[in-house]
Amino acid sequence: MGLINNINKAFDHRIRLGIMSILMVNEYADFKMLKELLDVTDGNLASHAKALEKEEYIKVEKSFIDRKPNTKYSATPLGRAAFKKHIEALEKLIGK
Amino acid sequence: MGLINNINKAFDHRIRLGIMSILMVNEYADFKMLKELLDVTDGNLASHAKALEKEEYIKVEKSFIDRKPNTKYSATPLGRAAFKKHIEALEKLIGK
Repeated sequence: MGLINNINKAFDHRIRLGIMSILMVNEYADFKMLKELLDVTDGNLASHAKALEKEEYIKVEKSFIDRKPNTKYSATPLGRAAFKKHIEALEKLIGK
Repeated sequence: MGLINNINKAFDHRIRLGIMSILMVNEYADFKMLKELLDVTDGNLASHAKALEKEEYIKVEKSFIDRKPNTKYSATPLGRAAFKKHIEALEKLIGK
């Protein structure tokens, strides 16, 4: 059992950390809000959001607002639990 | 300026986080010690250590102990400062 076993590979990238951190404290965030808060490109954000969606850590809802497409993200209960565990493992690793 | 700008890409992988965390609290660690503490393969450890060495965040010293090759790692002052900044950015991101 190594020191990093509880550190979740799915959160290894800072963009994924950023998405999850935002969704832990906001019920929803749309694509534009995430993009601005994280200061990342559309492609980067989309690919890391997709990876988290695949793990079922976040949920994606697509709709139209004023006839414009809107993509809304939220953390799933599974994602919240996994991220909490990840943060605890990080804190343990760095001795906090 | 995004929320994740101060999160250092060089530490995005959990094995690199692990190596740095160990070297923050130990003056030196050899390859075997890192491998056992982190429970990773030789190849994985070598490749992530190499990445940190390239950034000049860790220093590698090769020697012979009882005629056996020994590889010793330590964090550089630059690495210590960068890791500290990274941890502070993580803490800020997750709202601690």
